[in-house]
Amino acid sequence: MNIILASTSTLFSEQYLVYLKSEIIVLFKGVDEIIFIPFARPGGISHDNYTKKAAEFFASININVKGLHEFEDKATAISNAKGFFTGGGNTFLLVKTLHELSLMNVLKTTIEKGTPYLGCSAGSNIGGINMKTTNDMPIVYPPSFDCMGLVPFNINPHYLDPQPELHHNGETRETRILEFLTQNDIKVVGLREGNWIRRIGDQITVEGTQPTRIFERGKMPYEIAPQSSL
Amino acid sequence: MNIILASTSTLFSEQYLVYLKSEIIVLFKGVDEIIFIPFARPGGISHDNYTKKAAEFFASININVKGLHEFEDKATAISNAKGFFTGGGNTFLLVKTLHELSLMNVLKTTIEKGTPYLGCSAGSNIGGINMKTTNDMPIVYPPSFDCMGLVPFNINPHYLDPQPELHHNGETRETRILEFLTQNDIKVVGLREGNWIRRIGDQITVEGTQPTRIFERGKMPYEIAPQSSL
Repeated sequence: MNIILASTSTLFSEQYLVYLKSEIIVLFKGVDEIIFIPFARPGGISHDNYTKKAAEFFASININVKGLHEFEDKATAISNAKGFFTGGGNTFLLVKTLHELSLMNVLKTTIEKGTPYLGCSAGSNIGGINMKTTNDMPIVYPPSFDCMGLVPFNINPHYLDPQPELHHNGETRETRILEFLTQNDIKVVGLREGNWIRRIGDQITVEGTQPTRIFERGKMPYEIAPQSSL
Repeated sequence: MNIILASTSTLFSEQYLVYLKSEIIVLFKGVDEIIFIPFARPGGISHDNYTKKAAEFFASININVKGLHEFEDKATAISNAKGFFTGGGNTFLLVKTLHELSLMNVLKTTIEKGTPYLGCSAGSNIGGINMKTTNDMPIVYPPSFDCMGLVPFNINPHYLDPQPELHHNGETRETRILEFLTQNDIKVVGLREGNWIRRIGDQITVEGTQPTRIFERGKMPYEIAPQSSL
């Protein structure tokens, strides 16, 4: 496998995907065209407009982008693709669409054979075992929460430390993930913005600028440094 | 109907339910015992311990509390109850449990006949049409997102204004609710902490100390003052 699962597409005050540019060039080395999966539709943007946004970035590294929604036979398009990028947005919408079109499994098996994959935010959630550690609002009802399991754990993108100065009684992110662990025995990687997971073959590491917070049943949450194995 | 759907159980630096005490006394006037629904299990607390927490508060206003989990025949217990309180926690866990035990509908019809109901946070979400505007993490997979529809709209409890100083690229609450409206034509009441919805018969108002933010498809979000009709 050859994949990047990033916490976010965009760092504060930066342009789309720019902080990941050198990594993306390495990921897609020798690839001149990828399929973009626009189904998470952030802010309700159309599939066409979201694909244009991705295409603008990839033009800067000489990679052509086609939206998966443009293909009549999407499963064959996935099988034949040279690379994938799944953008962020709403994970419920993304997972519902992939399951309803019966694409989750063909995407998984194609990536497992070595086709490079980039996911950001919701696109990273679907690389985990299931989507039960997304931050997104359940605006639609997917037929299943199961995802691709490209890594043997779940991801919490945009991981956010407690903000006690807010004086707000909604649950902190840590509280939510600990609640998840009461119902599921699955490791959760709390991926702060600016960090990403890199899998090359069987080697899985966390990369980026910040430590990463790990949650496991029966253990206190703990931090690991950039470049640590997962 | 005679119900309160509150944004939160606890205000910052206050004790459990204290800010709502005078309202709760009015809601449960003439009632000496209520059923507490502990299924949302905040932080993974046990049903027994969560029920004790509620019972301690209600003892201060001379109301006895029994946990719904204590009854063998829960549907009959609901039908015969003199009042209900559903505490906060994880809405997915609450809704899954109510649907799997086939209790959502009997609870709805009993409340619609006039049995008083207090909900906080997740307990307020289930008073809406569906749970698609919860803030909670989908730690379990409910068989349906449908709720009781005690009011003709959805609720977003713990409504939080954008926090631009966070420099964080996760979606704001407003962005999430606007995404909901791209997929659903249902009014959403963004209930800030300290506010609650009061329904007496057919009259529905929003109460509390802060304005309330309303989201409707095709309109700009707008604010209404305390005591406004909904």
